[in-house]
Amino acid sequence: MEINQYIDHTLLKPESRQDQIDKLIREAKTYNFASVCINPTWVSYAAKALEGTDIKVCTVIGFPLGATTSAVKAFETKDAISHGADEVDMVINIGQAKSGHFAFVEEDIRAVVEASGDKLVKVIIETCLLTDEEKVKACQAAVAAGADFVKTSTGFSIAGAKLEDVRLMRQTVGPDVGVKAAGGTRSLEDAQAFIEAGATRIGTSAGVTIMEGKQTNSGY
Amino acid sequence: MEINQYIDHTLLKPESRQDQIDKLIREAKTYNFASVCINPTWVSYAAKALEGTDIKVCTVIGFPLGATTSAVKAFETKDAISHGADEVDMVINIGQAKSGHFAFVEEDIRAVVEASGDKLVKVIIETCLLTDEEKVKACQAAVAAGADFVKTSTGFSIAGAKLEDVRLMRQTVGPDVGVKAAGGTRSLEDAQAFIEAGATRIGTSAGVTIMEGKQTNSGY
Repeated sequence: MEINQYIDHTLLKPESRQDQIDKLIREAKTYNFASVCINPTWVSYAAKALEGTDIKVCTVIGFPLGATTSAVKAFETKDAISHGADEVDMVINIGQAKSGHFAFVEEDIRAVVEASGDKLVKVIIETCLLTDEEKVKACQAAVAAGADFVKTSTGFSIAGAKLEDVRLMRQTVGPDVGVKAAGGTRSLEDAQAFIEAGATRIGTSAGVTIMEGKQTNSGY
Repeated sequence: MEINQYIDHTLLKPESRQDQIDKLIREAKTYNFASVCINPTWVSYAAKALEGTDIKVCTVIGFPLGATTSAVKAFETKDAISHGADEVDMVINIGQAKSGHFAFVEEDIRAVVEASGDKLVKVIIETCLLTDEEKVKACQAAVAAGADFVKTSTGFSIAGAKLEDVRLMRQTVGPDVGVKAAGGTRSLEDAQAFIEAGATRIGTSAGVTIMEGKQTNSGY
């Protein structure tokens, strides 16, 4: 698989304007990224703009705190899909994870998986706020609930993806569940290192820089 | 009005555990704060713990990015109220404000106001991301949509409340709409300065420090 097909081309800053979303979409078409990852308010707009392409519309649920109720996360998922989302990246209930309530965490993920139908669900565990034991339990909850991917980070907390977390997550979920490294990928070298550590998707706002690095490296 | 009655005693960190919510509620009872302000996932728990008191349960909607759809914000509002929320602090669609689409911003606020029934709605405009002109237009949209309060900040962006913003917001909304200063209140002196500038509510995680400052000042 080519590097561009690993990339969720991401713009989640709340102050993003329509012209910035337009630019993101143009870049995704230029490089044929896996998806654009945008806030729910832009899903319907992006879905229209990407009609007839293979580029997916990815959005975020319960983002970035994960502290809404399961009912709201499920409703938000259905709402996003009805507007054209192909993939939803949900945030776990971090407070419940920190309280040791992993049955709650699992049920919360299951509510989104059930609401998503045949669409892809990625589960953001926000590694920077969890201990290693909590990271493992959160990944196990995601797998048990039927999620397609686990994902390291929102990009809105104190740190993004780290190589050792990607390795731990890959080891925990096995070969059949995806791992998305988000936050902290700024170059082609970063992306390659995350993929080597076990990532099958990269969430980044530096997709264009990464592709330019590839072109430099390849000599075109 | 005593200073304690201005304070929304606030804990919105996503990693907050149940025992930290318990502590927040105990402190709110000790000082008889206006409310506890917590994430939606804790509303039902806090409502039960505060039964029989005058302390309100305040929660946050579309928080902290404001980039969910109006339908999701309305659903989230109804869900929170059904679990016992008395007050909802919603975030405006910041990207639409930055794109100059204030009719959209107003409709988005109205969706929450209509979903809230007789409960209090505070509208977070996230001053640190807006120009002065945008701050004024966002406040006007909140008033036109029937909101009860405008509020400066989520506490999750690049800066919290500033005195000049509170003055501008008070001047814009007139005497009949509340102004909540959130983020940046760390002492009794800060709180008094915001109130002098026009704030009628203070959102802070430093409520206990503020009250201890009051006791020191009063000599008990």
